[in-house]
Amino acid sequence: MTLLYVLEIFGTVVFAISGVFAVTRRGLDVIGALALGIVTALGGGTVRDLIIATAPFWIVDSNYLWAAAAGALLAFSLGGLIRSTQRAVLYADGLGAALFAVAAVDKTLSMQFPESVAVLMGVLTGIGGGLIRDVLAGRPTLLMSRDIYATPILLGCVTLVALRHLAPDIPYSAAIAVTVIFGIRALAIYKHLEMPVWLTHEAGRDV
Amino acid sequence: MTLLYVLEIFGTVVFAISGVFAVTRRGLDVIGALALGIVTALGGGTVRDLIIATAPFWIVDSNYLWAAAAGALLAFSLGGLIRSTQRAVLYADGLGAALFAVAAVDKTLSMQFPESVAVLMGVLTGIGGGLIRDVLAGRPTLLMSRDIYATPILLGCVTLVALRHLAPDIPYSAAIAVTVIFGIRALAIYKHLEMPVWLTHEAGRDV
Amino acid sequence: MTLLYVLEIFGTVVFAISGVFAVTRRGLDVIGALALGIVTALGGGTVRDLIIATAPFWIVDSNYLWAAAAGALLAFSLGGLIRSTQRAVLYADGLGAALFAVAAVDKTLSMQFPESVAVLMGVLTGIGGGLIRDVLAGRPTLLMSRDIYATPILLGCVTLVALRHLAPDIPYSAAIAVTVIFGIRALAIYKHLEMPVWLTHEAGRDV
Repeated sequence: MTLLYVLEIFGTVVFAISGVFAVTRRGLDVIGALALGIVTALGGGTVRDLIIATAPFWIVDSNYLWAAAAGALLAFSLGGLIRSTQRAVLYADGLGAALFAVAAVDKTLSMQFPESVAVLMGVLTGIGGGLIRDVLAGRPTLLMSRDIYATPILLGCVTLVALRHLAPDIPYSAAIAVTVIFGIRALAIYKHLEMPVWLTHEAGRDV
Repeated sequence: MTLLYVLEIFGTVVFAISGVFAVTRRGLDVIGALALGIVTALGGGTVRDLIIATAPFWIVDSNYLWAAAAGALLAFSLGGLIRSTQRAVLYADGLGAALFAVAAVDKTLSMQFPESVAVLMGVLTGIGGGLIRDVLAGRPTLLMSRDIYATPILLGCVTLVALRHLAPDIPYSAAIAVTVIFGIRALAIYKHLEMPVWLTHEAGRDV
Repeated sequence: MTLLYVLEIFGTVVFAISGVFAVTRRGLDVIGALALGIVTALGGGTVRDLIIATAPFWIVDSNYLWAAAAGALLAFSLGGLIRSTQRAVLYADGLGAALFAVAAVDKTLSMQFPESVAVLMGVLTGIGGGLIRDVLAGRPTLLMSRDIYATPILLGCVTLVALRHLAPDIPYSAAIAVTVIFGIRALAIYKHLEMPVWLTHEAGRDV
């Protein structure tokens, strides 16, 4: 519980920052930055909580709301420093998504939902905030790219569900799943990896 | 109940296929296809279930989730065949929308909501998944076109509500409503029909 | 309660009109106009009601639904008159947003949610319908502009929460908050004000 809490608060700040950073190229005022940061940080988890019929996490504990607002304002006020650290933004975003996805699987499983629903809620929470951010910012969503972003999240959520199912007594299974997601994502960022062509639809055009 | 179930499972597969097909022109990897197919197939009904305060249908019965995933993977793996069947995609999408809309009216009425809400939930479920798909895929939504898409859905939902209200003992009223929706939509596809100019705002510019 | 009701019904009509007016430049047919008007008018409040776990307001009282439909059809049928009144549309939209935000703060506070949640729900309800409208219409959302739109809503919601907290016996506190929001917004429209550069991220690029 404590680990989950720390993970989620940290992920909230990181995700709000990455939300504001992602649209820094456009003319975004402080209120727009606040709105985008909060929506990016809280959006995925809110949809998850509505679907699993529980009170949104940031209503139950407003620390999440303040963490998101703080992350957004921090990112806005540090705008001048950001263009030199675009890479760091990608890593922060990947870490936020990993933390959110794992916490979501944990929460969904603890409410006795089926394992397939837990995986889906993990992926939704990991990519949901980013999807809402991209749509509101008018950017192509991550689903339209060959970026390796949703794939490690799916793998990590399946890993966590499998570990809980096969070896419920293993400690640190959440940490293992975060490592799987962030490890693959970080490698993809570092090595500029993309999804292989045979796993991409576009390829069909040339065949 | 059995008819509704078969209709909904079939509609789920068809809608997931049409979701992946709709964005086949863009570089979509297998995970993106899975996500888009699932969101297109389950999105409209999920919003409906949240609004009428019932558990999302694919949590209650995970067959819907697997049907959506199967449809998406099928469409992805058949990518090479698709460009020759763009017409078939339009018909499949129209049938999926008809099945979804009618099942939604049925479900909403059976929960004792007012008839106006049932019609609205029917239209929302029929076009909702497609709207989410278009937004995530960065395409103009169907609301922005003069395509005859939402209109037959509205007519069919009103037909079903009227039949249930005026002649509750008529069998096959759901089948009649599906026929109304898919019949008009199929005719519009076959004849390349568009909404008449006097029912379109753009016309006002020239008057 | 009566004041809140009149405010909300009036806001619903005004917001549906502004929803249809906002996309009048595109080829929008009557069903698309109906859908966009209804979504703009009811969308923000529906998301609010889902989050605070209460039945959507237009299900409880279908007058809202009919008001939205009437506003949309009115705007559609008056399409020819509209291009000469673009300014009026902006004012009507600002008034609708003010009414919606204040009613949302009122409703959330009356359900004993924390004040931070009430402010957030006020802003969400004030800008939510417009965000959904912009996304469905394929326009850049208001968050991407330096328009002074969300800022007065935030100020007015904070004002209302502060008044209720510090001086709960003051009458007309809702009217005061509406005046704050609409007053600033109307001034911004009239004077063509934009957010100051030092509150905008874009500025960082030139520094």
